[in-house]
Amino acid sequence: MLSRSIRDDFPALDRKINGNKLIYFDSAASTLKPKLVIERLSNFYLNNYANVHRAVHTLASESTQMLEYTREKLAKFLNAREEEIIFTSGTTMSINLVVESFVRSGMLSSSDSVLVTLVEHHANFVPWIRLSKLHNFHVDVVAPTGRFGELKIEDFNVKKEPKIIAVTFQSNVTGQVIDIEKIREKFPNAILLVDGAQYIPHKKIDVKKLGIDFLAFSAHKMLGPSGVGVLWGKKGFLEKMEPFLYGGEMIDKVGLDNVTFNVLPYKFEAGTPNIGGIAGLLFALEYLEGVGFENLEEHIKKLTQYAIEKLSKIKDVELYGPLNENQLGIVSFNINGVHPHDVAHLLDEKFGIAVRSGHHCAQPLMKILKTQSCLDVFPNSTCRASFYAYNTLEEIDILAMAINKIKEWFDVF
Amino acid sequence: MLSRSIRDDFPALDRKINGNKLIYFDSAASTLKPKLVIERLSNFYLNNYANVHRAVHTLASESTQMLEYTREKLAKFLNAREEEIIFTSGTTMSINLVVESFVRSGMLSSSDSVLVTLVEHHANFVPWIRLSKLHNFHVDVVAPTGRFGELKIEDFNVKKEPKIIAVTFQSNVTGQVIDIEKIREKFPNAILLVDGAQYIPHKKIDVKKLGIDFLAFSAHKMLGPSGVGVLWGKKGFLEKMEPFLYGGEMIDKVGLDNVTFNVLPYKFEAGTPNIGGIAGLLFALEYLEGVGFENLEEHIKKLTQYAIEKLSKIKDVELYGPLNENQLGIVSFNINGVHPHDVAHLLDEKFGIAVRSGHHCAQPLMKILKTQSCLDVFPNSTCRASFYAYNTLEEIDILAMAINKIKEWFDVF
Repeated sequence: MLSRSIRDDFPALDRKINGNKLIYFDSAASTLKPKLVIERLSNFYLNNYANVHRAVHTLASESTQMLEYTREKLAKFLNAREEEIIFTSGTTMSINLVVESFVRSGMLSSSDSVLVTLVEHHANFVPWIRLSKLHNFHVDVVAPTGRFGELKIEDFNVKKEPKIIAVTFQSNVTGQVIDIEKIREKFPNAILLVDGAQYIPHKKIDVKKLGIDFLAFSAHKMLGPSGVGVLWGKKGFLEKMEPFLYGGEMIDKVGLDNVTFNVLPYKFEAGTPNIGGIAGLLFALEYLEGVGFENLEEHIKKLTQYAIEKLSKIKDVELYGPLNENQLGIVSFNINGVHPHDVAHLLDEKFGIAVRSGHHCAQPLMKILKTQSCLDVFPNSTCRASFYAYNTLEEIDILAMAINKIKEWFDVF
Repeated sequence: MLSRSIRDDFPALDRKINGNKLIYFDSAASTLKPKLVIERLSNFYLNNYANVHRAVHTLASESTQMLEYTREKLAKFLNAREEEIIFTSGTTMSINLVVESFVRSGMLSSSDSVLVTLVEHHANFVPWIRLSKLHNFHVDVVAPTGRFGELKIEDFNVKKEPKIIAVTFQSNVTGQVIDIEKIREKFPNAILLVDGAQYIPHKKIDVKKLGIDFLAFSAHKMLGPSGVGVLWGKKGFLEKMEPFLYGGEMIDKVGLDNVTFNVLPYKFEAGTPNIGGIAGLLFALEYLEGVGFENLEEHIKKLTQYAIEKLSKIKDVELYGPLNENQLGIVSFNINGVHPHDVAHLLDEKFGIAVRSGHHCAQPLMKILKTQSCLDVFPNSTCRASFYAYNTLEEIDILAMAINKIKEWFDVF
């Protein structure tokens, strides 16, 4: 198992939580950070850091080179052009940038329709819903018809091809990987924006082969620092789009009456970027390359299938999602009759296991789960265990044991 | 001198740049980082980091507590309420948030006018100019009439009190500190937004006493990490304002037709915040408290006045700004007949001195400097030396010596 060789890289795993060794099953929210990434980040901050671009001195050059090298690396990583890689503060800003910019550029008006799905994280749902109210474009919502929120290609049964389809690559609640290629096949002309926050940390993708138009993801879910995200977009669109943030570096000429903008990608990078964060993303990518993306995917697959197998055998525990090989890195569950917050709290307090509980920023999906679920007493909430490179099968055994204990304490039989 | 006791905290200062010890005069772009801040940040990332808010497990609680403690600290620092402190990705985003949010909320329409000044950084100029074109509100521009871009209170001679005044606390080109209290006196009813990016790192302020309505600043110019900024705004305004970024955490209820929003400050904090960056800002604030803001201000004043004195004695060197005690931390200059990029390049290559050269993201001000300047051959560009806690008088002596050498090489007599 991959985890054996790399667990020592994560000092947090040595922590005792209320007397138990930490079992970190919250990587879908944010991963732990490897020592090497943080050490390199510290060295960068202490020895090579200055503001980028606008200066000729040595530290500024070193920082600028690092930033542009990260961009080059990301372009290769996604099979994209460097000028199409935009640094943002995270997936949320990446998606907001596209929606607001489309509105400002007149690329989203009252005759246009957008298709989103009910399995989206709020980051890829609320911007569309809210800005459609403010700017009068139309939003259609695809509801999943599969068991426990499973989205199928047949669910995309709209009469007319929408202008834009905004869809996640992977549900952050059920772990379902969505078949983006099939969506592209069905809608060959729509602008396809993909929320990659959950999936990109799990598998190397090729944006050209997928035929998508925009991709958003964050560094902090793939061993990097918080506060830095990526927006990849096709050059043809980015060139037509009005900037989202206005300020330094993104301009060409600033007059009293109007302004002209810099070339791509700088047009979309106003202000001092998250220089340290971008360095950290580079170091995280290099660490992940050392691990190997194929090894990583295989490891996470193994953990997920093992968790599904183990937990589905426990009576009165309900699992959500496709429960097959399309479910990756995430297992959401509830114990019949026990509030998920209580379960999460006890897992932490009594077993040192960190899981997330709540609506997981996906209220529309939670409503569907509730109606579909035999456990309809819950207030739109699940426990979610999520896995990454450092997790082990043994940790999942402990989770199963802990769930059985909690059942006992709550007299669930 | 303050610098003597703290220089050891900044490992970058031990670096040799082309054989010379680094002299870092680019703090107005971004400061160096102290060892203690970066060590604490590393420890946080490796041992206490998880995503904030939505979880009950130990690491998530520790991270959330850190984030909210930083907010509390900032509230005390500015004499504001905690719910009025919004974490952003930097000053640029803070200002863009206010402008776009005002537009969305109907608080900036065609009958409204905004007053900005020509001494602004593009971050507090371009959003107003560009969004006024897109949304038809009116922008008036105050031009400084003082020598070399010095802005005077008499320059604010508009007929009608504007709805909003957007002004910097300190010019990032001339170092002039603007008298915000006098502006408030002259315009008692206008909404006063202050760009504090340059000034906040120099002096502790009290937003209530100043009577301002919004304040924006960044961590990276005050010893903290990049990618994190603060927007402070008066509760009454923030409550009425539409959010800027939509996504997780900032919502209350998400339906298919519309959404309702979370309370302040979360309404404005969509997505995973820059958790590490916010921790780093806390550690930087605590470091600065150890230094003492009064000591810091006094130290930077001494350095600035000494640099003005030294450099103004050099023939054929022109200095820009008020050249009195209102100039803080920044000295912009040119050598007659030598391009500022050449000067900056030679200072780096031959003396290890890091200064910035160019338009400093303030093109409108550069145009004024050009027309006022006896050195009108330059393409809207200056060299800028900027100082912080770790700089010394001796370093300024070396800068003066280096400028004299460059004059010799270029035969400027």
